[in-house]
Amino acid sequence: MADTNTDTVSATPVTLLGLGDMGTAFARAWLAAGYPLTVWNRTAARAEPLAAEGATVVATAAEAVAASRLVVVCLLDDASVGEALADADLAGKDLVNLTTGTPDQARARAEWARARGARFLDGGIMAVPPMIGVPESGGYVFYSGSGALFEEHGTALTVPTGAKYVGENPGHAALHDVALLSAMYGMFAGVQHAFALIRKEKDIAPKEFASLLVGWLGAMSGSVHGIAEHLQSGDYTKGVVSNLAMIVAGNPTLLSTAEGQGVSPELLTPYLGLMERLLAEGHGDEGTTGVVDLLVR
Amino acid sequence: MADTNTDTVSATPVTLLGLGDMGTAFARAWLAAGYPLTVWNRTAARAEPLAAEGATVVATAAEAVAASRLVVVCLLDDASVGEALADADLAGKDLVNLTTGTPDQARARAEWARARGARFLDGGIMAVPPMIGVPESGGYVFYSGSGALFEEHGTALTVPTGAKYVGENPGHAALHDVALLSAMYGMFAGVQHAFALIRKEKDIAPKEFASLLVGWLGAMSGSVHGIAEHLQSGDYTKGVVSNLAMIVAGNPTLLSTAEGQGVSPELLTPYLGLMERLLAEGHGDEGTTGVVDLLVR
Ligand SMILES: NC(=O)c1ccc[n+]([C@@H]2O[C@H](COP(=O)([O-])OP(=O)(O)OC[C@H]3O[C@@H](n4cnc5c(N)ncnc54)[C@H](OP(=O)(O)O)[C@@H]3O)[C@@H](O)[C@H]2O)c1
Ligand SMILES: NC(=O)c1ccc[n+]([C@@H]2O[C@H](COP(=O)([O-])OP(=O)(O)OC[C@H]3O[C@@H](n4cnc5c(N)ncnc54)[C@H](OP(=O)(O)O)[C@@H]3O)[C@@H](O)[C@H]2O)c1
Repeated sequence: MADTNTDTVSATPVTLLGLGDMGTAFARAWLAAGYPLTVWNRTAARAEPLAAEGATVVATAAEAVAASRLVVVCLLDDASVGEALADADLAGKDLVNLTTGTPDQARARAEWARARGARFLDGGIMAVPPMIGVPESGGYVFYSGSGALFEEHGTALTVPTGAKYVGENPGHAALHDVALLSAMYGMFAGVQHAFALIRKEKDIAPKEFASLLVGWLGAMSGSVHGIAEHLQSGDYTKGVVSNLAMIVAGNPTLLSTAEGQGVSPELLTPYLGLMERLLAEGHGDEGTTGVVDLLVR
Repeated sequence: MADTNTDTVSATPVTLLGLGDMGTAFARAWLAAGYPLTVWNRTAARAEPLAAEGATVVATAAEAVAASRLVVVCLLDDASVGEALADADLAGKDLVNLTTGTPDQARARAEWARARGARFLDGGIMAVPPMIGVPESGGYVFYSGSGALFEEHGTALTVPTGAKYVGENPGHAALHDVALLSAMYGMFAGVQHAFALIRKEKDIAPKEFASLLVGWLGAMSGSVHGIAEHLQSGDYTKGVVSNLAMIVAGNPTLLSTAEGQGVSPELLTPYLGLMERLLAEGHGDEGTTGVVDLLVR
């Protein structure tokens, strides 16, 4: 099949297990690039459209695994990976797991794969399906685990979306994935609180307000580098312009404004409380970096 | 004084009350641009360096107010504004209050100024002192209240830093200010949680991780426009790629990862909880916009 297209003569055969929204997007990207692709999905009907687009559809996960050395799994959760691969012979395979999970699950899965004779790479997808196959979308996958596997199959893995390899520890892709998602939820929590504050103001247009918010958050996100510097140097005062004492002095204004606008402060109070605790512990001349240490047990 | 410089022959005389870090930065910007400036500070010593730089220093707030039609106040809090201006004759003055406060305080202060015969503009400063006088810093002040005042003195007010006028309601500058700060605290809370997750991982460098975080938050902040669209249209499903049901399904992964890394989830749980409540109320096919309405009483 591939030998009709000089561009793809040497494209690595890929097996993909799991044709949900995300798996299907990955499948289409490899097919579009001329990669020989074998697919399997528990519910067979979901594979049909891909057969028409050139994929080889097989009936069992074991057959699919047998078809290629590079085996990519994109299933619901870690338990479904164990179930789907229960009867497959993984000896000599290069297993790439794009299924979302915790760092501990990824490390256990790596051990499980090693015991079955496979090399293992875990992935954390930082994209939604419409971003796959669209390089300018900025999407990418964090990979960690076997560096040799990543080096050998980097070209194939980079076809659907970008790739960032974050080290041999198989848990680190999931850790990066969850950490970035968690930070994003914090940002969204703050944004929802901000929208709640203007919710009843008929003459503040949410769309104009959104542009102000996005500009401000973008400008302020630079402080993240300052926090990293603090954590690396251990000096939490370096480059601090607004220190914790000044910031905490402003907390009542944030809370009374929420109160005045009829907005529950529940998304704000935990962070304000941690800053107050840090101040009470004598860190008023530092920035807010110490909050990180308050969170770690 | 100003007539020695053709650029500034017609510069509006400015009176500034309050020479803390922020007031001093504003004073220097006006002096540098050749504006005739009269200053007063409760603690007189703080005014001395500015006298040497060309400011007229006076002994009482009342004298300072008498010196110019445009009177800018940049004091600690709303109470200090009331105290400082207690004996001043505000009749016919254009009072601009850059002191941070709540929307309610700004509205009350506007009423107070009106009763004393002054036009009133409230300001919320979206900058730190080192950004003042540095146009490329991106700093600015939200202004609201008298549009006529803002139009007449916009040139003078835009000298120290940018200006965004957000309407006649004198509380709206403070509301924008507090809303943007609140959103930023959410973002920082998320970022601190993310750094806590990697705190014990010796082979993840905080600085590299910071770059990933900043890139990701920047890319994801675009969703803020989607929330605004939802709020304006009332259709909370429009353009939703990852719906609430999918997002909430991932919550346990975020929580077990925190647990596995020894990190308290206290900054994350309120937002996860609100999303779960929204899902339980039947909004699984929507985005997260409904959280805004859960917050508003
Ligand atoms: N969609 C996104 O926006 C997104 C973003 C980042 C990461 N991810 C991750 O990518 C992975 C796949 O997501 P998705 O959106 O494609 O999910 P999905 O549309 O819900 O598809 C789930 C897939 O898992 C299969 N599956 C579930 N349980 C199984 C089992 N016990 N044995 C075998 N197969 C099983 C399903 O097969 P059936 O068709 O038979 O049900 C289906 O192929 C997830 O880990 C998700 O967290 C998704
Ligand atoms: N600094 C920032 O990063 C920043 C950013 C945004 C907004 N702001 C806002 O700007 C305003 C000024 O901030 P700042 O940084 O300049 O504060 P600051 O350095 O603490 O200075 C406070 C000023 O208020 C005066 N003051 C306090 N109580 C007074 C009273 N009862 N009567 C008369 N004067 C009184 C002080 O006079 P003395 O010298 O006599 O004490 C001083 O001039 C605040 O509302 C602040 O929230 C500051």
